[in-house]
Amino acid sequence: SRSINLAVIPGDGIGQEVVAEGLKVLSAVLPQDVKLETKEYDFGARRYHATGETLTDADLDALKQHDVILLGAIGDPSVPSGVLERGFLLKLRFAFDHHVNLRPSKLLPGVATPLAGQPEIDFVVVREGTEGPYTGNGGTIRKGTEHEVATEVSVNTAFGVERVVRDAFARAQARPRKKLTLVHKNNVLTFAGHLWTNIFNKVAEEFPEVTTEYIHVDAATIYLVTQPERFDVIVTDNLFGDIITDLAAAVSGGIGVAASGNINPTGAFPSMFEPVHGSAPDIAGQGKADPTATVLSVALLLRHLGYEAEAARIEDAVSADLAERVGQPARSTTEIGDALSVRVAG
Amino acid sequence: SRSINLAVIPGDGIGQEVVAEGLKVLSAVLPQDVKLETKEYDFGARRYHATGETLTDADLDALKQHDVILLGAIGDPSVPSGVLERGFLLKLRFAFDHHVNLRPSKLLPGVATPLAGQPEIDFVVVREGTEGPYTGNGGTIRKGTEHEVATEVSVNTAFGVERVVRDAFARAQARPRKKLTLVHKNNVLTFAGHLWTNIFNKVAEEFPEVTTEYIHVDAATIYLVTQPERFDVIVTDNLFGDIITDLAAAVSGGIGVAASGNINPTGAFPSMFEPVHGSAPDIAGQGKADPTATVLSVALLLRHLGYEAEAARIEDAVSADLAERVGQPARSTTEIGDALSVRVAG
Ligand SMILES: CC(C)[C@H](C(=O)O)[C@@H](O)C(=O)O
Ligand SMILES: CC(C)[C@H](C(=O)O)[C@@H](O)C(=O)O
Repeated sequence: SRSINLAVIPGDGIGQEVVAEGLKVLSAVLPQDVKLETKEYDFGARRYHATGETLTDADLDALKQHDVILLGAIGDPSVPSGVLERGFLLKLRFAFDHHVNLRPSKLLPGVATPLAGQPEIDFVVVREGTEGPYTGNGGTIRKGTEHEVATEVSVNTAFGVERVVRDAFARAQARPRKKLTLVHKNNVLTFAGHLWTNIFNKVAEEFPEVTTEYIHVDAATIYLVTQPERFDVIVTDNLFGDIITDLAAAVSGGIGVAASGNINPTGAFPSMFEPVHGSAPDIAGQGKADPTATVLSVALLLRHLGYEAEAARIEDAVSADLAERVGQPARSTTEIGDALSVRVAG
Repeated sequence: SRSINLAVIPGDGIGQEVVAEGLKVLSAVLPQDVKLETKEYDFGARRYHATGETLTDADLDALKQHDVILLGAIGDPSVPSGVLERGFLLKLRFAFDHHVNLRPSKLLPGVATPLAGQPEIDFVVVREGTEGPYTGNGGTIRKGTEHEVATEVSVNTAFGVERVVRDAFARAQARPRKKLTLVHKNNVLTFAGHLWTNIFNKVAEEFPEVTTEYIHVDAATIYLVTQPERFDVIVTDNLFGDIITDLAAAVSGGIGVAASGNINPTGAFPSMFEPVHGSAPDIAGQGKADPTATVLSVALLLRHLGYEAEAARIEDAVSADLAERVGQPARSTTEIGDALSVRVAG
């Protein structure tokens, strides 16, 4: 019989609320014969204030025992900027070598977009997750003086770039339009840019059916608002991916529906799935948060584990739910979770 | 009697066409007593192919003799990516210490935007121009092998950050809304992020009337499409500024109307004004390019030299011209330039 051994990290703010709904929908969609075991972990601001810890080696050992991880949100204004980001979120992505950061963007019928004319949006960004400007390389000298110098080093390796580029080509190959766009800034960041571009062109030879294009990151932000339909799969570096996926979320229905996966395709470590949004402390505890992004992250999680039919059932339920929202009063976090649970079970 | 000694760099592609119209409007708007001297320089793809040169020391010496520089566009697909960007555009910005890269965004009445609901957009981005990931620091080892490592080093100095932050505060102070937003990614790029944030907070004390806020660059792209009216003045690093100003141009009327100034406020070297758009080789030589971004760059140039009334006359002429475009057939590059010349003279 099948089983899923899931680590649950509700985290801070609305993380608690949205993860509860994600789990509700997960339980509802899973076939009877699949045994779901969950263990909850207390990470984030509360733990940090209580113990000074963000993510210890023992924590990593414990998380490693699970098949997969579901995360709500981490971050709180009471913690200095960077502490939980570097000490938890990025530490986990790096420790578990989550090199494929998967962020689909699909504008579903009935969903509001800030763009005029309701364009067709259906693409997925494959963001590199373990290199680039996110490595924490760099430093500061003469801190706090008028002679301070601070550096940030973007580290890019052939190994790291090639594996994510190959993953992106395989995803493009599996989609009807079979198109892959490399987003970088190779006219200015020439060292990293040449590495990315050369590897992209080399791997392209293995995927003759995939149409390729290159776009500078600045121009990509223009296309994301003027012709988002031009994108199918995008592969890009860690920082550019961070930036363009927030924009992508904004134009394709907002951060309330943007899901993501931090994937280690080798299976050496559990992958982690999380909504793109943060902990939103301003609306936390009020039942106002939209759990849809978390529910869609659960769909990505299921697809990652091979439960394709169940993933599709969640996505269909979300589409139907979003279409029915038009003109209706706002529902609470649990109301949306309940409605989705009913749909996926039905 | 007054005079302007202008260096003109038409450059590649549509650069030639739009600069001609910019000069036409400049001549038309200047008072009789101002003597305009112009000298044209041949930089860009043609020169590079003929001589292998992009910008020599002698070129820099010659340009240095001018009060100010007007540039059309540099770049051509026949030149490898990075050669003209690093060898000309960035070389000039660094050599002349153009640390204030000024990019206003204003959605004028009648102008099309990809955003629904015609939001109010009127902000200016002060992009740092001489530091950050643009310095060319970094390198490559084991190039072309499976063990290649490429680095890009973002260099940030207290000196460089403070001068541009102070410039941005002064600009915010001079505007009715008096609001300044720092855009960075200080939760991940903690070394540079702390430097920027600390200096921003320190300089803020000198400008008690200015309201300040901090926004991560990823979130900033969301706000630029969902609530662009929240921005008044934005100060940011070189790369983040590159990215968000293209997005800002897209939402506020497109790259056809986006102007910029590469300013050295000390006057030690001439400042340079240029449209944000590139050389657009696909439409070059067809009279299709919109010279408006160049004409608005001429307005920034005039304001920089102290010709405030003339700058305002150009901006008013552009507003009126854009408002009259609605529903009209497209005009040629020269037709638009002629119309603007008539308006500013009248
Ligand atoms: C919170 C932060 C560290 C994170 C990132 O920059 O990757 C977030 O913005 C994201 O996109 O998941
Ligand atoms: C062409 C390129 C070097 C330049 C930049 O990145 O600064 C351009 O994109 C700009 O914004 O002026």
